Amino acid sequence: MRIGIVGGTGREGRGLALRWAAKGHAIVVGSRDAARAQEKARELSAELTGGVGPISGGSNEEAAGAEVVLLTVPYAAHADTLKGLRGALAGRIVIDITVPLVPPKVTQVNLPAGTSAALEAQVLLDPTTRVVATLHHVSSAHLGEPGHAIDCDVLVCSDDQDARTVAIGLIEDLGLRGLDAGVLKNAVALESLTPVLLHLNRKYKTNTGIRITGLG
Amino acid sequence: MRIGIVGGTGREGRGLALRWAAKGHAIVVGSRDAARAQEKARELSAELTGGVGPISGGSNEEAAGAEVVLLTVPYAAHADTLKGLRGALAGRIVIDITVPLVPPKVTQVNLPAGTSAALEAQVLLDPTTRVVATLHHVSSAHLGEPGHAIDCDVLVCSDDQDARTVAIGLIEDLGLRGLDAGVLKNAVALESLTPVLLHLNRKYKTNTGIRITGLG
Repeated sequence: MRIGIVGGTGREGRGLALRWAAKGHAIVVGSRDAARAQEKARELSAELTGGVGPISGGSNEEAAGAEVVLLTVPYAAHADTLKGLRGALAGRIVIDITVPLVPPKVTQVNLPAGTSAALEAQVLLDPTTRVVATLHHVSSAHLGEPGHAIDCDVLVCSDDQDARTVAIGLIEDLGLRGLDAGVLKNAVALESLTPVLLHLNRKYKTNTGIRITGLG
Repeated sequence: MRIGIVGGTGREGRGLALRWAAKGHAIVVGSRDAARAQEKARELSAELTGGVGPISGGSNEEAAGAEVVLLTVPYAAHADTLKGLRGALAGRIVIDITVPLVPPKVTQVNLPAGTSAALEAQVLLDPTTRVVATLHHVSSAHLGEPGHAIDCDVLVCSDDQDARTVAIGLIEDLGLRGLDAGVLKNAVALESLTPVLLHLNRKYKTNTGIRITGLG
């Protein structure tokens, strides 16, 4: 599958690109600065010792042309980025991993005006764009290192069942267990759990994650 | 410690009373119908084969006179119950386990007007009452059976650090791991995760819970 990563030159982008490329997906790393994305793509391709891929780089608009588009930008840039890509993202599956954190109080729940970043995305984007919210609880430190085993389940929600299924498959290609967490409204729970995990990290001096128990 | 359980004749009340009494706490089961609470207390005392306790019953006002008061009522009765007990609960630690579910859509996040039941409780109650939000994720089926081992961590939040510490101690007396989840605002995350777990229960036909990973 062709996967675009908008804002893909960051820490999350690196791990996602390497893990997915190793599974044979074609990755388009996107950035506001296309030259920087191309450089990052060359760098990641060189790291991809097992081959496969390919990983290319370009503008965020080019990344938004892929079948599935993952969005990884700071919440402060979330709305503007989506508005700029509204046309390009029509008909796409958009995987939004944004957590609406408000520095410096990142260990306290912040509910944005639209109640969740993903719900805001669905309103800002074209009605034919199917927004999926997921990957809020995986530590970027772990995700960024493709060799790391990650002790964390990944909850996936969307109003579109097919989009949820596609995203769960892609989560599994990252080496993680993806679980169907229901409608997009449930992104409120997923996004707001991240500040709690950040509080736990600080309180217990560790990197926390979550596991859903009872699934056998 | 003397623990009152407001709305204590229900399913959660049974397991909490038996588990805490077995650890030597004195339990006051409260109900709008004091006679029913007294009957329930006698029934639970008879079940407490290992002795200790005692478990007594009375009105919700009597339960609210204990050092620590746990509130377990349906969300529809939450505000009225708290308004009626405002005076009795002044100066107490109130452990609020309410999830603001809106039947029949119990698998979708519902944010109440005050954004969380526990935040609403803190506003409705006297400023000297310290509200703790916790126990939203333990299946009542498991909690109700005092012999059941429960594969679930318990997140605890409050604006009062001492109240958080007392609640974590009481969670441990239930045989569970209690974790400090930060300020009361974080109750939004805790309460809204319950509909997600109910969705997972339905989707995967099981009884789910959560574990925080990375704590060693």
